Amino acid sequence: MQAFYDYLDTHHDQFLAELKHYLAQPSIAAQNKGMREMAALAQQRLEARGFKVELLPTGGQPVVYGELGDGPKTLLIYDHYDVQPPEPLALWDSPAFEPTVRDGKLFARGAADNKGDQMCRMQAIEAWLATQGPLPLKIKWVIEGEEEIGSPNLEAFARAHADRLKADGCLWETGGRNELGQFSLWLGLKGIAYFELRLKLLDTDAHSANGPVLPNAAWQLVWALNTLKGPDDQILIDGYAEHVARPTPAEIALVDALPYDAEKVKSLYGTPRFINDMDARAAKRAMYFNPTLTICGLESGYTGEGTKTVLPKEARVKLDFRLVPDLTPDRVHDLLRKHLDARGFGDIEIIRYAGEHSASSPADAGVVQAAIQAGRAVYGADPVIYPRMPGSGPMYPLSDMLGIPAVLAGITHHGARAHAPNEHIILDEYWRGQKFIGEFIRAFAAL
Amino acid sequence: MQAFYDYLDTHHDQFLAELKHYLAQPSIAAQNKGMREMAALAQQRLEARGFKVELLPTGGQPVVYGELGDGPKTLLIYDHYDVQPPEPLALWDSPAFEPTVRDGKLFARGAADNKGDQMCRMQAIEAWLATQGPLPLKIKWVIEGEEEIGSPNLEAFARAHADRLKADGCLWETGGRNELGQFSLWLGLKGIAYFELRLKLLDTDAHSANGPVLPNAAWQLVWALNTLKGPDDQILIDGYAEHVARPTPAEIALVDALPYDAEKVKSLYGTPRFINDMDARAAKRAMYFNPTLTICGLESGYTGEGTKTVLPKEARVKLDFRLVPDLTPDRVHDLLRKHLDARGFGDIEIIRYAGEHSASSPADAGVVQAAIQAGRAVYGADPVIYPRMPGSGPMYPLSDMLGIPAVLAGITHHGARAHAPNEHIILDEYWRGQKFIGEFIRAFAAL
Repeated sequence: MQAFYDYLDTHHDQFLAELKHYLAQPSIAAQNKGMREMAALAQQRLEARGFKVELLPTGGQPVVYGELGDGPKTLLIYDHYDVQPPEPLALWDSPAFEPTVRDGKLFARGAADNKGDQMCRMQAIEAWLATQGPLPLKIKWVIEGEEEIGSPNLEAFARAHADRLKADGCLWETGGRNELGQFSLWLGLKGIAYFELRLKLLDTDAHSANGPVLPNAAWQLVWALNTLKGPDDQILIDGYAEHVARPTPAEIALVDALPYDAEKVKSLYGTPRFINDMDARAAKRAMYFNPTLTICGLESGYTGEGTKTVLPKEARVKLDFRLVPDLTPDRVHDLLRKHLDARGFGDIEIIRYAGEHSASSPADAGVVQAAIQAGRAVYGADPVIYPRMPGSGPMYPLSDMLGIPAVLAGITHHGARAHAPNEHIILDEYWRGQKFIGEFIRAFAAL
Repeated sequence: MQAFYDYLDTHHDQFLAELKHYLAQPSIAAQNKGMREMAALAQQRLEARGFKVELLPTGGQPVVYGELGDGPKTLLIYDHYDVQPPEPLALWDSPAFEPTVRDGKLFARGAADNKGDQMCRMQAIEAWLATQGPLPLKIKWVIEGEEEIGSPNLEAFARAHADRLKADGCLWETGGRNELGQFSLWLGLKGIAYFELRLKLLDTDAHSANGPVLPNAAWQLVWALNTLKGPDDQILIDGYAEHVARPTPAEIALVDALPYDAEKVKSLYGTPRFINDMDARAAKRAMYFNPTLTICGLESGYTGEGTKTVLPKEARVKLDFRLVPDLTPDRVHDLLRKHLDARGFGDIEIIRYAGEHSASSPADAGVVQAAIQAGRAVYGADPVIYPRMPGSGPMYPLSDMLGIPAVLAGITHHGARAHAPNEHIILDEYWRGQKFIGEFIRAFAAL
């Protein structure tokens, strides 16, 4: 592999220029901005490495789909060519779509999530082809265009192309170093179900002197919410707990062995204590095994300065459920609807936003073992293995649903500011990530 | 009085133009917008009728204070030159500060509350002076500038000027027709205590994937609110119920005899039922005898379109307590603080906005009897007498505290949308109200 390493080490200028060009193209799915141009650019960059590429239609943005190589093993790669909106623009130290290097970091929207990983993987494959000959396995590459808006068409896409997407393992879009700086692998993601609850009880806001007789939507919503989760943070929705899979002793042991700096997390957010005064071990288990019900937003009536004596006609709350097996978005919606109806809150409307299933792969899967070997070779230590990320993503349709084990391994780090101003990657991690990809391909093909 | 009536009937165009000009001046105390200009305009309009006017300083907006006339009786008049904020602007059919006549109604912020009554009274006095000679009594006129923000300085003002404000009776800012269209008098007001509760638990908003461990201010606030009032609408604050004076059998009989069209109220606000499915009699008693706790506003986290997976750092709620004897703003604050502290909600900050005591005057007071006589003369029937308004106002410092009986009599009507978009008065009521003022002055001077 020395020639492979040398090729990578001697092409930094060319690779960085290509990466910057890739990041300079806006591709904001939420605003349908630059999407066609970005899909064409992704296609072109894959074709430059010899991939046979098609733009496969979905109900929304097309999937850029590429195939290259041959061998007994097939590797599915998932990335996405869309990015989060860059707002608030004023908080960026350099413009979001003018990639800028400062202090060994490359700042741009999409650098960490996830164009950096995409280009890193393409350039590693270029180096392989230039120094090692043809790929020792078949790569099937899905680059979708709707990840940042909840991948509303990915499940249907995966069903429609189930045969074509068959693979022995899947390398997921991102990953990298944990908050302690250790190279880490994640074997899945929590699911998510996001709802808005709306209650409108009056045609018009009323003077609050009518408080003795007119129903108040804000109070009703408070009482309804109070039945969903109690002050001990337990989710109280009827039948919910039955669908929360208990972690196995092996999973608990795995999580208990993980590094975790509770004080660092508390200090990052400025809180003296976790929920229920959890200690570090309890907090760590909660992060990986507990489903959540988070109030993301709450709004009713007058929220400006000072006072307004108003009885609001309506109230709204945004709720984010993070799901562990075997909760699903449909199941959560149905349980929530029944729970509210059973308590006289049938007039609360539930608006559904796109949900995602949780996804989990076994630690002994080939794709995981190959990533562990490649991690040892490049980072000089055993990767830390997490059962799942506490966040969510559209892994389920391409992994659990198609029966393909998946692993999250990439070039980002804690503090990369994905989704926020000044998103960035560390360039040394990028160069190291290219080597990881070569070692990973070699290990996976050889299994 | 015929000449007085004739003068009024022949000056509608001039009076309407003056009223529109008066309403076109924004004067939003909560935003300190246009206050100086409005005080100057009120002063100028009083001086145009011969009043000797001073701007008396308070800790906040000055009181416009005018005196005119002489006689054995002294009448205190109370009005206010500030108005509620006009938001939400999009719901106005014509701009809030561009007074517009449609279908015999005049739409503008402040038309009903309370610049309409002010101008109505000034123009009636102008007609008296032009047709009847000097006033037969002394008028002391207080027009304050902080009524809509809870009159935080009126009590100190009343104490400082107690001798100067001495009077035999007080005509309060507003009144008019009840929901059945009957001309009515009110002998007092509920008190009010308005608070904002704020809870900040994190330095920064967090990604909602942190839901298993980071405390959520929105949830904590929901749980705290739930301990303050239950779904049966009972206020649960420790010790609160002890301070709610039970109405006497005589008061109950008075209220039970009042007219009340429950279906009309429900239809006005578009609700099929009152709280707890109260019938008309229960609703009426509740309006006059029950203290309230209203959520006026609720805000936390992301409230824009679509989804944002955020765990909010803080949450806020605005609470309006309406007070019956012997609840006072200080007492409610102390009970609320103790209640929250006792339940582990000590980190919820309570912001106090100005409170107001309840106020009550006896039905046999001269000022009430004069209003009854004037009502009979102008409206052709005995006015309906209410023990108090379900709303609040700063009456206590100028009535109960100084020992001056007060009555609420004015030109508004049920459905005038005070504090809401499309606030308006009915012009015929405005013209009739001018005549009422003349008859009232004559009757009160003659007692």
